[in-house]
Amino acid sequence: MDEPIRDSRTLAIQLRDRIAELIRAEGLKPGDKLPTEAQLTQRFHISRPALREALKLLEQDDIIYVEHGRGRFISAMSAVQVDRPITVFESVTDMAQHYGYKPVNKVLSISEEDPPAVVSEKMCLEAKARVIRIERLRLHDEEPILYCIDYVPRTIIPAKLYDIDWSGSLLNLLEQHRHRPRMSAATVSSVMLPDDVVERHDLRDFGPALLIAETCFDAAGKPVNYALDYHRGSHFTFSLVRK
Amino acid sequence: MDEPIRDSRTLAIQLRDRIAELIRAEGLKPGDKLPTEAQLTQRFHISRPALREALKLLEQDDIIYVEHGRGRFISAMSAVQVDRPITVFESVTDMAQHYGYKPVNKVLSISEEDPPAVVSEKMCLEAKARVIRIERLRLHDEEPILYCIDYVPRTIIPAKLYDIDWSGSLLNLLEQHRHRPRMSAATVSSVMLPDDVVERHDLRDFGPALLIAETCFDAAGKPVNYALDYHRGSHFTFSLVRK
Repeated sequence: MDEPIRDSRTLAIQLRDRIAELIRAEGLKPGDKLPTEAQLTQRFHISRPALREALKLLEQDDIIYVEHGRGRFISAMSAVQVDRPITVFESVTDMAQHYGYKPVNKVLSISEEDPPAVVSEKMCLEAKARVIRIERLRLHDEEPILYCIDYVPRTIIPAKLYDIDWSGSLLNLLEQHRHRPRMSAATVSSVMLPDDVVERHDLRDFGPALLIAETCFDAAGKPVNYALDYHRGSHFTFSLVRK
Repeated sequence: MDEPIRDSRTLAIQLRDRIAELIRAEGLKPGDKLPTEAQLTQRFHISRPALREALKLLEQDDIIYVEHGRGRFISAMSAVQVDRPITVFESVTDMAQHYGYKPVNKVLSISEEDPPAVVSEKMCLEAKARVIRIERLRLHDEEPILYCIDYVPRTIIPAKLYDIDWSGSLLNLLEQHRHRPRMSAATVSSVMLPDDVVERHDLRDFGPALLIAETCFDAAGKPVNYALDYHRGSHFTFSLVRK
């Protein structure tokens, strides 16, 4: 192993960071050519194999790309970043606040039930398991912007339903019960609100909704919540990077 | 640096992979406790700082998580995977085929135009730049499932518009012009088709649409395409992991 880089952080990672630094410092732009291997080994006083390992990391991170026979180039990835992507797991409340909404949370109904088949399946529930069903509406300036149904296994929140304040964050409630959701497997689609919901809750003007249906897992990988969040289309647009 | 691990791959990465291997080999499940630092340094004959670097990588990859005061645990990430997430950049044709559709591509209109303001902005076009606008409908079994508008800078495809077959993949066409899109910055929302589109093209039954609006970049980071893809809500559901 070569001389100048030698601490507990390992060579390839250090080197990756140094090359990334070099790219910034020299103002290299997407499409620009990276210095050659010979130039880089000389500059950083390192061996070819060590350098290649670092370059592989940069390629994995989409900082550079290889055109065979032509060399390595700065990629567009650094230029393509989006604010608060849909892939970030966060509470509906935090998300809505980020959009500038100050949502008021109306609890429409709370009940203990047998889970619908899809809920049993998504949360891997046992045959006789019961769930709490929470139906809520979020209003901003008296306008409905989100219609949400949440299912939580009864075993996770064993308290009397009427002893709990359901108008707060479900994530925080689950955290109090030591099962804070950390990530989810989700689907996203475009739908109208179900007819019975529209009629029961006077939501005729809601229009098309972005439905995020997600199974949320705690840090231990246990499914602790199945959520259907209907985001009013006129009020929400999510961003993401695709690559 | 300690003995047994010593090749051009760096210690932390090697060690990360070895610990991941250990997790698999010992059948550790989400929520299980990782062996202690003392056990791991002994097992792999490495120093504490080197081990901690590797553990940090495992944490970054969401293979393990830390509960302060309690130790390190196996996370659920390995259990949470989705097929073909919305974050994968691919052609509309490939995407639709994955859903089991065999889309027929109807070209509705082709024209050279001044770009709308949003298109200029998203593609960083110069003041007098012109664009090609391509309006297409994808049918499956004679049912419309996708309505698409694409903008491409005129400079990228300089040929006569009538000399080009627009019914094929735009990605492939851009590749022929050495500007294949590799990634995009996208937004996703739920909308109805614009009224004029509905009337002009007889799309009254289309219903709510999942609109993906995206600026596509080639490998050099040049914006080469701005696309509006209206996915018929009854026909498409995308998946993703949120964390």
